[in-house]
Amino acid sequence: MRIDWLARAVPQASALYPYVPGKPIEVLLREKGLSHAVKLASNENPYGPSPKAVEAIRKAAGEVHRYPDGDAGALKAAIAAFHQLPADRIIVGNGSNEVLELIIRTFAGPGDEVVYSWRGFIVYALAAQAAGATGVAVPEADGLTHDLQAMAQAVNEKTKVVCIANPNNPTGTLLDLTSLQGFLDLLPRDVVVILDEAYYEFVADELGDSLTTLTHPGLVVSRTFSKAYGLAGCRIGYAVADAAIAALINRFREPFNVSLPAQAAAIAALADGEWVRARVADTLVERDRMEAVLQQLQVYGGHSHGNFVLLRHAGSRQIAASLEDRGIIPRPLAGYGMADYLRISVGTAAENDAFIAAMQDILAAMESRS
Amino acid sequence: MRIDWLARAVPQASALYPYVPGKPIEVLLREKGLSHAVKLASNENPYGPSPKAVEAIRKAAGEVHRYPDGDAGALKAAIAAFHQLPADRIIVGNGSNEVLELIIRTFAGPGDEVVYSWRGFIVYALAAQAAGATGVAVPEADGLTHDLQAMAQAVNEKTKVVCIANPNNPTGTLLDLTSLQGFLDLLPRDVVVILDEAYYEFVADELGDSLTTLTHPGLVVSRTFSKAYGLAGCRIGYAVADAAIAALINRFREPFNVSLPAQAAAIAALADGEWVRARVADTLVERDRMEAVLQQLQVYGGHSHGNFVLLRHAGSRQIAASLEDRGIIPRPLAGYGMADYLRISVGTAAENDAFIAAMQDILAAMESRS
Repeated sequence: MRIDWLARAVPQASALYPYVPGKPIEVLLREKGLSHAVKLASNENPYGPSPKAVEAIRKAAGEVHRYPDGDAGALKAAIAAFHQLPADRIIVGNGSNEVLELIIRTFAGPGDEVVYSWRGFIVYALAAQAAGATGVAVPEADGLTHDLQAMAQAVNEKTKVVCIANPNNPTGTLLDLTSLQGFLDLLPRDVVVILDEAYYEFVADELGDSLTTLTHPGLVVSRTFSKAYGLAGCRIGYAVADAAIAALINRFREPFNVSLPAQAAAIAALADGEWVRARVADTLVERDRMEAVLQQLQVYGGHSHGNFVLLRHAGSRQIAASLEDRGIIPRPLAGYGMADYLRISVGTAAENDAFIAAMQDILAAMESRS
Repeated sequence: MRIDWLARAVPQASALYPYVPGKPIEVLLREKGLSHAVKLASNENPYGPSPKAVEAIRKAAGEVHRYPDGDAGALKAAIAAFHQLPADRIIVGNGSNEVLELIIRTFAGPGDEVVYSWRGFIVYALAAQAAGATGVAVPEADGLTHDLQAMAQAVNEKTKVVCIANPNNPTGTLLDLTSLQGFLDLLPRDVVVILDEAYYEFVADELGDSLTTLTHPGLVVSRTFSKAYGLAGCRIGYAVADAAIAALINRFREPFNVSLPAQAAAIAALADGEWVRARVADTLVERDRMEAVLQQLQVYGGHSHGNFVLLRHAGSRQIAASLEDRGIIPRPLAGYGMADYLRISVGTAAENDAFIAAMQDILAAMESRS
């Protein structure tokens, strides 16, 4: 007799579905029999991290038989110094994905609610479900931007956590600090608000400093080393919170959740601000160039504040398949209810050129067939 | 008005206390003003991993701007080939710590029970608490060995998971496969049994192959790359389970939970079995030498089957402090209700010599003072 393991699992297991990551290059190469491919699916930094971070990993390779510092003391001290904040306000995680999950698990369980934007980063919904909490997805007013009014109205006595990504992934929209503070002022003081700033470095000049400007006792600002810092493969993210909140979240954290090479790499990357600023500047120039081309090709999906652009076309599925045939991996957004959209990460100039040439080709072929 | 964040957190937060890792070398050096220290606190492989794994990390350093393969396809294929099992039976984690936590979170929540040995690895208790489940700690019959009879009796209709470490950390005791199968036969078929084989490589010849010998539908065998394989700093562990169980646990796994350098290192380490076997052999020779010295010094805490020895002395606290004064970090076991014991990891011959010399010194000084 077969055992029904789902019936033996915690109740929330039945509703959980796994996250679908961007297709790895190796998989596409295998599928298509290609020798070279360009991945524009996961908003990675195409230039790589600071060479000092790469060097730190190479050096750390000689020490990996030792456990990492379980408290990540040196890394937390570096982050604290970077933000001029006390280290006891920092929580580190195996990517900001884990940080987000830890925050939600600490505060939300069965009977509790987690509020987020419908087209917010899908990990909020997954983490709420995994914790057995109820996710409340609030539709965007215009289809792309957080509807802060509606989100505030969705908050009730069951709400433990609210999640906002700014800029938002995958819609690329940005909320200014005045709007955010207005939103925070509408909330009960004891609601935890995750402000997910995974793409912060790309809007730093435009947005200003959320960490010193916004005030709300339950505010938790998360950042990552996976995007602008170019360390997605290492898995390091962090959040800044009230020290009492950080201490609680740390109770749920596994002691060695950030690897030894990752801690070393993040410390080195943080110290090389020049590299990050230069690569962000490169990326913004390329993003604007790509958006201009998308407009020209009449497949523009609206302005993105992140290191990605939005392509909109009724035949987006066919375009995605044709791009993959040409060795370019886009990210379809059907999972976000945006079936007409593709998200395209900003690559190097050469990668973007390849994307643009492929698009011109694909659209011309689609037109001649119709 | 200050907010009571603990009251806002999930109920299980109040009982959670953080894991206390072995003291990092840097901390001891700073505390004592020493220039050199020997860490014998975390059962690491003192020789380091296979040089091929180190090389794999150095190579991966050039690719860390890319996300790891979210499915860890190549790593799971390597593990599956190693065990001659289908890859859909493998679960990978950020250290076996995360694997253990994922298994417990998948099956045990509020109202459920998790049974483990009182002096079993403390992570079982922490993971059960974090999941909001009730931990049931069963005392050892002789103070050190799992009491399988009593553990089977502790299983009731609320029991979802049973955890057994074999060999056990920190007591070093080993259960043979006949005893384990006898225990499994006493349990309901739908109870998940975690057989935590973090120290398996040190008993492989003595124990035999648990994976092919033991039968129980809910059996989940976990292994780690942190001990014999020498990759504690990278954070990689895995478990082998029924494919349906593995699929359920994967729903709770974050997509990029094992870093890119870790996946590469583990694949390389697994392929270099010769290195692991040679380092295990070195370790067992050194362990036996250390146990003989502890017996001679009349501080022997019983035979250990792991890569550590047990020191027993009523003045263990003072001995620990004196060892640290000499730059040697032991692991006190008071947290396991073993206040008389210190756990000493087996180091290199030179490290063990330093420990032995320090012990002779410390015991002579204690004797002359008494």
